[in-house]
Amino acid sequence: MNSLSEIADIIKANHSFGVTYHVSPDGDACGSVMALVQGLRKLGKEAYIISRDLTPDNLGFLPLSMEIAGHNTKPKNNSDILIALDCGNEERLSCDISDFTGMIINVDHHITNDMYGRFNYVDSSSSATSEIIYSLLNELDIELDTSIAKCLYTGILTDTGSFRHSNTTSSTHRVVSNLLNYNINHTKIHSALFDNKPFSKLKLIGRVLDDCKLLFNGKLILLYVTKQMLNELNIDNMDTGDLVSYGLQVENTEVSVLLKETDCGVKVSLRSKNEFDVRNIAEKFGGGGHIKASGITFNDCTLSEVKDKILNEFAKELD
Amino acid sequence: MNSLSEIADIIKANHSFGVTYHVSPDGDACGSVMALVQGLRKLGKEAYIISRDLTPDNLGFLPLSMEIAGHNTKPKNNSDILIALDCGNEERLSCDISDFTGMIINVDHHITNDMYGRFNYVDSSSSATSEIIYSLLNELDIELDTSIAKCLYTGILTDTGSFRHSNTTSSTHRVVSNLLNYNINHTKIHSALFDNKPFSKLKLIGRVLDDCKLLFNGKLILLYVTKQMLNELNIDNMDTGDLVSYGLQVENTEVSVLLKETDCGVKVSLRSKNEFDVRNIAEKFGGGGHIKASGITFNDCTLSEVKDKILNEFAKELD
Ligand SMILES: [Mn+2]
Ligand SMILES: [Mn+2]
Repeated sequence: MNSLSEIADIIKANHSFGVTYHVSPDGDACGSVMALVQGLRKLGKEAYIISRDLTPDNLGFLPLSMEIAGHNTKPKNNSDILIALDCGNEERLSCDISDFTGMIINVDHHITNDMYGRFNYVDSSSSATSEIIYSLLNELDIELDTSIAKCLYTGILTDTGSFRHSNTTSSTHRVVSNLLNYNINHTKIHSALFDNKPFSKLKLIGRVLDDCKLLFNGKLILLYVTKQMLNELNIDNMDTGDLVSYGLQVENTEVSVLLKETDCGVKVSLRSKNEFDVRNIAEKFGGGGHIKASGITFNDCTLSEVKDKILNEFAKELD
Repeated sequence: MNSLSEIADIIKANHSFGVTYHVSPDGDACGSVMALVQGLRKLGKEAYIISRDLTPDNLGFLPLSMEIAGHNTKPKNNSDILIALDCGNEERLSCDISDFTGMIINVDHHITNDMYGRFNYVDSSSSATSEIIYSLLNELDIELDTSIAKCLYTGILTDTGSFRHSNTTSSTHRVVSNLLNYNINHTKIHSALFDNKPFSKLKLIGRVLDDCKLLFNGKLILLYVTKQMLNELNIDNMDTGDLVSYGLQVENTEVSVLLKETDCGVKVSLRSKNEFDVRNIAEKFGGGGHIKASGITFNDCTLSEVKDKILNEFAKELD
């Protein structure tokens, strides 16, 4: 791995940069890329965003979102360097690198990173790639401004879940303390990121919570999303992965389980509040994930079959 | 008003301190009082909590919560000083001061503070009283520790709504950055504060969202809490004030309105996402509050009467 100052030296020595992120970019991917591109331009470099994805709806407020229009999907011919941010492996890049002969700089904070760059800087102790870009801009002596600070704040806010997740450190808050000196409207950023649900999503939350069940002496919450609910609310295609977390808001629960009826079967999301290992349960059915967040896909099963299978396993541990 | 170093000098010059907060103490009241009491003890002072209230359920994890048992409701005879934290006026103190002949030190961050102390330090630019106590402990050269840091973090987290509200400043994050160096488990604190709902509350959220309405071209969300809902869920007495905020999570809404049926009539909560002034509406019905958060109480009215009155007013501005 390289040091951040080596990365800075490579940047100083070159002129034209394509900057990209992982497919389906989130707030950290977009925030870190937009912050770096703006910084490089301040240094007089040519810098542009490469993206096969369009800007997600809730990130349209970010300053360079108009530059993500689906045109630049590969590095320009004259570019020396492709900088890949927040992306653990080459396959997930939102960028076509098949003809690219220049160098890749890989900057990321994921523990599992393939080190696919010619130069690599991966710091898994950073809460977000945006936190690393803050340091890199410092290293490059680039003065921040409101627009750059807004991007970096958005990235950190996204990846820390509003400073809640365990990746949030003393250093994260120190960086954010400095960002707030650049006159950003942080409440508007929270609002743009978190208060942007379609009305039908709010209704779906209502239906799901209205129907949820408390089991095993209050230790497990069971939530359902059925095809009927989605039909009745005219919901075609919506991320419902976050619904499972509502179960953890209840006092004394240990586990939240969401069963979602799909066209091919049932998707199960498992979350644990503290020590309970849900991956252990997921693996019994060919699923996987982390101790506190795992998932399983069942094909050709009904909701009630899957419910019985899953609850049988939880009964062994919670009853 | 006094300076913080004057407050520190008074503390250094005295020996015995009762420390209290406002009635119905929240995370900032409890956090700041517990942090200061621990700090004073480190200086070798006698310090104890005075409280007419018991510790709220979700704050039982705080270190000195066992000392709030309903015994100390007034200052001891030998105490020179009563320190009142996070409380804007004498009438709201969770402490009987009728016989007290010593001095009151009033430390607070509310804009409206009556300056009822012999010594007063009110800093409305601080996000929380806990943020001020951080500086006061510094001024007193008291070394922080995990237990004190936990209390201060809890206070700041509560009053900033997880670093979201506009009272959160660069200095807030700087203080928190330092607190995280004392080995506190911040994710557990978030969980204790925010993931502590009774199951019936989750069901109520479900019912309320399932029934909510989108009006005025999506600019207003109308939510109800009826007596029937509360009866069916066996809910006797529960704070439902937070339900109104769910309406603001919807994209493009400007206002969220919650109507709650009570024994004497209807309570209305109004919230605004951005610029819309809900206090203006509240004042037309004898209510009040802030631009973004106001309330009205209607006596001897039915839910549907109140709904019509309120929506008529909103129609003038939103239609
Ligand atoms: Mn990231
Ligand atoms: Mn407060």
